[in-house]
Amino acid sequence: MTQTMKAAVLPQFGGADMFEIRDVPVPAVGPREARVRVHATSINPLDYKIRRGDYFDHVPLPAIIGHDVSGVIEEIGGDVMEFAVGDEVYYTPQIFGTQGSYAEKHVANVDLIARKPKNLSHEEAASLTLVGGTVWEALVTRAQIQVGETVLIHGGAGGVGSIAIQIAKAMGARVFTTASRRDHDFVSGLGADLAIDYRAEDHVEVVNRVTDDVGVDVVFDTVGGDILTRSPHVLAQMGRIVTLVDIPQPQNLIEAWGRNASYHFVFTRQNRGKLDALTNLLERNQVKPIIGATFPLERVGEAHAYLEAGSANGLRGKVVITVKGRGNQAS
Amino acid sequence: MTQTMKAAVLPQFGGADMFEIRDVPVPAVGPREARVRVHATSINPLDYKIRRGDYFDHVPLPAIIGHDVSGVIEEIGGDVMEFAVGDEVYYTPQIFGTQGSYAEKHVANVDLIARKPKNLSHEEAASLTLVGGTVWEALVTRAQIQVGETVLIHGGAGGVGSIAIQIAKAMGARVFTTASRRDHDFVSGLGADLAIDYRAEDHVEVVNRVTDDVGVDVVFDTVGGDILTRSPHVLAQMGRIVTLVDIPQPQNLIEAWGRNASYHFVFTRQNRGKLDALTNLLERNQVKPIIGATFPLERVGEAHAYLEAGSANGLRGKVVITVKGRGNQAS
Repeated sequence: MTQTMKAAVLPQFGGADMFEIRDVPVPAVGPREARVRVHATSINPLDYKIRRGDYFDHVPLPAIIGHDVSGVIEEIGGDVMEFAVGDEVYYTPQIFGTQGSYAEKHVANVDLIARKPKNLSHEEAASLTLVGGTVWEALVTRAQIQVGETVLIHGGAGGVGSIAIQIAKAMGARVFTTASRRDHDFVSGLGADLAIDYRAEDHVEVVNRVTDDVGVDVVFDTVGGDILTRSPHVLAQMGRIVTLVDIPQPQNLIEAWGRNASYHFVFTRQNRGKLDALTNLLERNQVKPIIGATFPLERVGEAHAYLEAGSANGLRGKVVITVKGRGNQAS
Repeated sequence: MTQTMKAAVLPQFGGADMFEIRDVPVPAVGPREARVRVHATSINPLDYKIRRGDYFDHVPLPAIIGHDVSGVIEEIGGDVMEFAVGDEVYYTPQIFGTQGSYAEKHVANVDLIARKPKNLSHEEAASLTLVGGTVWEALVTRAQIQVGETVLIHGGAGGVGSIAIQIAKAMGARVFTTASRRDHDFVSGLGADLAIDYRAEDHVEVVNRVTDDVGVDVVFDTVGGDILTRSPHVLAQMGRIVTLVDIPQPQNLIEAWGRNASYHFVFTRQNRGKLDALTNLLERNQVKPIIGATFPLERVGEAHAYLEAGSANGLRGKVVITVKGRGNQAS
């Protein structure tokens, strides 16, 4: 008798209304895997890019997608020593090649799984795994921000940007960020030292004026558009640009040599170590989750539409999905 | 009575025949500067790019250009403690904004100046300052090659490439390099583990075949062309590309995200520290200078033409200029 679970299944690539809630088999647990009752997951731009077909050659259909889990371990494989049934955990599933987190249960290799921060709810923890791991990769591993440096974060009110501001501040950086005027108080509250209204002002002009043409040490691009090409103009010598937003248009980089710039292209790789490091900051309240909206799993399509509309509807931070699964009452 | 010296003066930007040997005033020495009798200098691609006008807005005319000095200190400023008259030194003059090294004498801030390796002639030392400092910047400071990694060096038989092969080997890397067929024995003699005949073979295909599609950890581009755009296809996850050759054409970088690639754009910054580090390798014979041709200062135009013709005339390594100055007999 195969056990089943509810999952949001994507039968075809397309709009936010494509998801179908179905009963699907509960996945089996391999020797180095754990099965987790999912209490919450969340939506990332990666999710709607996958949904609309941007990565069609990496995602066989029908698919269960989703890249954040916070929940409780309900079964472990025979070679798992570091976790036990009942442990509260959070993690990002492997991106591509395995089942995602829009479901009541999820199975992952335990090398990806970290203990959930004690002071966070499942909703808060689920809002952070992909975003937090990505910011860690970008600012700590790749840009290697040093205390005292200045960082320009594009899109500071967004799901990634709002965590990036806090992690950059925790690293001892001065933080500039672009945001809509109405979000300036919000990003200042997160620690931003300067908010730039990108609609009213040219960020290159503002940065060069404020820094006396010295520029910033690090640019973090969470937005795309022409930021890659323009960034050398705001960059100090030996400055670094970290970009999350893959852009197919050719980029004119001629200014990059004169600045001795480095461009770091990031497509997140997940692992436990980054989440454990992030947990330290979370448990000390140096970084706080920002949840802009919460939807139940059954309304995941609405959640997608809400995130895609983005700042146009005043969204700040993350869109979280709660999963009231059959096993969840027990925890 | 103003003292004079011979120098190769560039009165206008243009061809290799533009240089004029003139008597010009010997430059004065500031408190933190030293004046050096130049025994040898050398030619770099940067030199002929400046000569033909690529950097016209950085170089006021008439100009004395040149970016390598090996010689003997003949005068020091009042605030110089670390050198004395008679010291043998080598260095790259500050690039742009000061007088270059195609002259009998040269004045530089002592922070740029390093002691000449004891086991090298002035000609050998002069062949290495810009090239060696640039390779150090590219492979040590920027790419941060780790022991055991694999590096692909484009243009292994050239002035930069021939030093890059040796420094990469000294860092414990496996080295692939592109070179003309006739230069394969030469680059193998420098330590290259694999020479790729770029005319007969596609380097992307060769690298992926030889590495079982894993790719290389670092690509070092000393050549230009389409290498920046194609490099992600030969790069392992978290691989790094270091490029010296500024290209105005827009680059399609869409493959860079999937590889989590980093691009490091290098326009050399000079300092004593890098040369001192390089000196260690030179004095242990882990890195050897490669001199392809030597010309006297009076024939600097011929030397430029010879370098610009490059591998077409079978050039391997550097083109060096000897300077038989009035003061040089005394040392």
